[in-house]
Amino acid sequence: MNLFDKHKDVLDKAIAAIHDRAFYAQYPEHPSPKIYGETADAEGRKRFQALLGKDFSELLQDDSAERIATEESPYLQEPLNIGYPSFSTETLIEKGTVAFHQWRKVNADERAAILIESLELMRERFFEIAYATMHTTGQGYMMAFQASGPHAADRALEAIAAGYEELKRFPENKFWDKPMGKFNIQLEKEWRAVPKGISLVIGCSTFPTWNTVPGLYASLITGNPVIVKPHPGAVLPIAIVIAGIQKVLADQGHDPNICQLAVDSLDKPIAKVLAENPEVKLIDFTGNSEFGSYLESLPGKNVFTEKTGVNSAIIDSVEDVDKVVQNLAFSVALYSGQMCTAPQNFYIPENGIKTSDGNVSFDEFAEKFVEAVNGIVSNPKMGPFVLGTIQNKNTCQRITDAEKLDGKIWLTSTEVENPMFKTARTASPVVVEIDSSKKEIFSKELFGPIALLIKTKDTDESIALAKEMALNHGAISCGAYTTDPQIKEKIADEMSLAATPVSFNLTGPIYVNQNAGFSDFHVTGGNPSGNASFTNPEYVVKRFTWVGLREPAKV
Amino acid sequence: MNLFDKHKDVLDKAIAAIHDRAFYAQYPEHPSPKIYGETADAEGRKRFQALLGKDFSELLQDDSAERIATEESPYLQEPLNIGYPSFSTETLIEKGTVAFHQWRKVNADERAAILIESLELMRERFFEIAYATMHTTGQGYMMAFQASGPHAADRALEAIAAGYEELKRFPENKFWDKPMGKFNIQLEKEWRAVPKGISLVIGCSTFPTWNTVPGLYASLITGNPVIVKPHPGAVLPIAIVIAGIQKVLADQGHDPNICQLAVDSLDKPIAKVLAENPEVKLIDFTGNSEFGSYLESLPGKNVFTEKTGVNSAIIDSVEDVDKVVQNLAFSVALYSGQMCTAPQNFYIPENGIKTSDGNVSFDEFAEKFVEAVNGIVSNPKMGPFVLGTIQNKNTCQRITDAEKLDGKIWLTSTEVENPMFKTARTASPVVVEIDSSKKEIFSKELFGPIALLIKTKDTDESIALAKEMALNHGAISCGAYTTDPQIKEKIADEMSLAATPVSFNLTGPIYVNQNAGFSDFHVTGGNPSGNASFTNPEYVVKRFTWVGLREPAKV
Repeated sequence: MNLFDKHKDVLDKAIAAIHDRAFYAQYPEHPSPKIYGETADAEGRKRFQALLGKDFSELLQDDSAERIATEESPYLQEPLNIGYPSFSTETLIEKGTVAFHQWRKVNADERAAILIESLELMRERFFEIAYATMHTTGQGYMMAFQASGPHAADRALEAIAAGYEELKRFPENKFWDKPMGKFNIQLEKEWRAVPKGISLVIGCSTFPTWNTVPGLYASLITGNPVIVKPHPGAVLPIAIVIAGIQKVLADQGHDPNICQLAVDSLDKPIAKVLAENPEVKLIDFTGNSEFGSYLESLPGKNVFTEKTGVNSAIIDSVEDVDKVVQNLAFSVALYSGQMCTAPQNFYIPENGIKTSDGNVSFDEFAEKFVEAVNGIVSNPKMGPFVLGTIQNKNTCQRITDAEKLDGKIWLTSTEVENPMFKTARTASPVVVEIDSSKKEIFSKELFGPIALLIKTKDTDESIALAKEMALNHGAISCGAYTTDPQIKEKIADEMSLAATPVSFNLTGPIYVNQNAGFSDFHVTGGNPSGNASFTNPEYVVKRFTWVGLREPAKV
Repeated sequence: MNLFDKHKDVLDKAIAAIHDRAFYAQYPEHPSPKIYGETADAEGRKRFQALLGKDFSELLQDDSAERIATEESPYLQEPLNIGYPSFSTETLIEKGTVAFHQWRKVNADERAAILIESLELMRERFFEIAYATMHTTGQGYMMAFQASGPHAADRALEAIAAGYEELKRFPENKFWDKPMGKFNIQLEKEWRAVPKGISLVIGCSTFPTWNTVPGLYASLITGNPVIVKPHPGAVLPIAIVIAGIQKVLADQGHDPNICQLAVDSLDKPIAKVLAENPEVKLIDFTGNSEFGSYLESLPGKNVFTEKTGVNSAIIDSVEDVDKVVQNLAFSVALYSGQMCTAPQNFYIPENGIKTSDGNVSFDEFAEKFVEAVNGIVSNPKMGPFVLGTIQNKNTCQRITDAEKLDGKIWLTSTEVENPMFKTARTASPVVVEIDSSKKEIFSKELFGPIALLIKTKDTDESIALAKEMALNHGAISCGAYTTDPQIKEKIADEMSLAATPVSFNLTGPIYVNQNAGFSDFHVTGGNPSGNASFTNPEYVVKRFTWVGLREPAKV
């Protein structure tokens, strides 16, 4: 069986799932990681440990290159000492250019087959990737497994499927026969989906595979060679993925440099030099708004960004306030607020909120929320694992600063002991009350475990502020709680105009932070939090150009 | 029958045609204009004449506005004296904003039905539009009829169909049911296609409907109100179309300001003010590269441009040289080279070209080409009607300048008498030989009836130059003649990389200038000649944002 036949069914199902948007997972995470094998976890951990302190030797790029080691575990607060090859930007562009002229001529079926095969290799290493993710991003084990493993692989498959469908959208050849009355004009036409050129994918420190693979696979399926420039702090997870892609490419007789890993250091960053190179036509970026906006402004490039945003929760009225605060507290605690979808601004009317048991005042709500956060944090079987660690030391400073904000401090941050890693860098959430008039405080992203309870005049003001923040500063998620259908539609309509998805009335084990592949578009692309969306049609069609060729039909 | 049921079949067939890309026309031009009725032409001419010298009174915009008259007939060299209402940009934006909140809530079916109904009104006025086009653009009658009438209506329908398909691409609602082992997480999900905001469509002086309606209808189908700012020299053709759209909108109970006409004068242009208004989110533009590039650089907008380019013809080898020069001469003469698809740079090897009758030298080819041009121009039953007139006086200056270029003048321009319009502004083509080393001469668009015969070392140089021009200065078309399959593939591959469509070996009554709706993508969007393509998926998906909403399923 050739590789395309092997994976055709997976591809067809993925395309159908994109259209259907019901639950679908080629790489499920439920009911537990054990579905990938009873011993897979232990073996993955061993393999991860074997990589530490050595040169990463699996890449099929030039082996003689100098090595750099840039990662540190937020759990151990020690360097991982894994050496990655370091290349000049000239070398990367040169190899990418050669690879372009090979890869662009590989047809869509073969590209899809190679890329899905690479996901099968990734699947075999989900646990190794999970531990690599823990010890670079500081995520808890379960999130590290799910987000960097199955969920990332599903997002990659989604991008492959979306790109493949677009490549097949129009016929390769067509006989065009125009009746002119006494005669016909007859042409043979052909259309080629021409890839744009070298694609640069710039990763982030918190989700090194989940945020990288959509752009990576979207560019590859549409025929563009990719240079992946990971965040220096989180290289290993994506290095493992890239090693797999290179292996399949080489096995199938292609240049492994079709997908290159380009590691740099914080001292000598190379992202700008690569981005500005005229051969680089596509740029995917996850990270801060300043650099993202700079990239978006580069002429002659198609740039796909996920930047920062100010996410909101609008609290109007609820059935059961205890279930609501449980859900929201978990959203804030999860990975210590270091998800781009984590809520930050909680808009609560000064007169409190309606519940089925009567009115709950602003202060009562705040107390219950704080209690729920404490319940998670202080539970030794839950807190450390939900919180994970703080990836970047700068986040600790932001937490300290948050406790000096101009408002009532409802909860201060503490370190949270991790039973497995005594040296883990941890911090529980800070909760601060802010008056709605103090917009300068809450109109920026305070990345980390920082929740602002914003006291508004009423729900109309809450909605207006959430919309304004999204339009002016971006937003990737919005949680909303209301039992009133009219208010619900108002929130839906106003936040839609601010291109912000809304999760209504979530309680139980589903959180506003979570976006599911094949169903939820991640980032809409319509507000300043980013111009790209995983995976809408725009995300793939901008990566190639339809070019038509025609000639008189042979008669 | 409601309006959607009335037009559903047309819509379905148009969507199928876009995918099929075989010949398709909802509004055919063949075998002759008479298919629209024996008396339609005469009646249309009368109706056109009745509009001259009066205020255009069909718009449903504010009737009390001041009037401006800006058009002049290149056939009569006299003003048309048709008065159009003139609005302040504030008024236009205000009305557009009100219209936005109405139109965005109209569903895709109703929008499609209204827009197709407006094309049916346009169809009834094809001849009136044809005469309006003749006397603003200076096109010959047949082109004015075809391009501004049936072809434009088909391009509009194509945009409607492409947009409609994208709006229906994902379900409005879906039950999402994720198995978690011992329980399921169940969500009701909803997706909304949220339009971007006010759309500004800036027209050109040469194809006032054909180049305007794709953006106009693409924005309208996706829920965006449109302000059409035509070129002051060519208002009437699109004013008639807009009057029809407004009539259908009003008949269906909607605000006619969903589609506004915004006429300005060359003295007091309003395009920049409108384009920079923050409520304007979408801009479509056809015109010069300088203004197009300025528009493309505006932050926070999605901009769709068709700018200028340097089109080429690569002559390598032919079967029958006489048929080839006939075809090329017609391409140059057609509307006096004032089509964005007209060839300008003819690359011919210094050693001549192979034909089935032996080698034809560079000079022999040039002689034959000049003879063919003269054959068209000097035929009184053909020349004046193929050439039409010169729309803009500046083009006459360019023709004069072309005769002073540094190269052998093979043919000078002359006036060509038009038997129906003694005062018509006409000019036959100039043909100049340029050495391939003099790149500064042929690396810019010389808009008008100017053909440069560029003497190259060989076909490889011809291809390299055509590609370089397209990559650096843009190209919308490329004609190529070769009998060698390897050279053919080389041209196809190299020009594809420069995102330029290629027409091979055209002879007879089909020309490189012609792009057919539902089959040929017009402009690829991949080189500096423009960033948009009629009508690829990117052209419509960038006009709205997918926003998801979700909540726990009621159990």
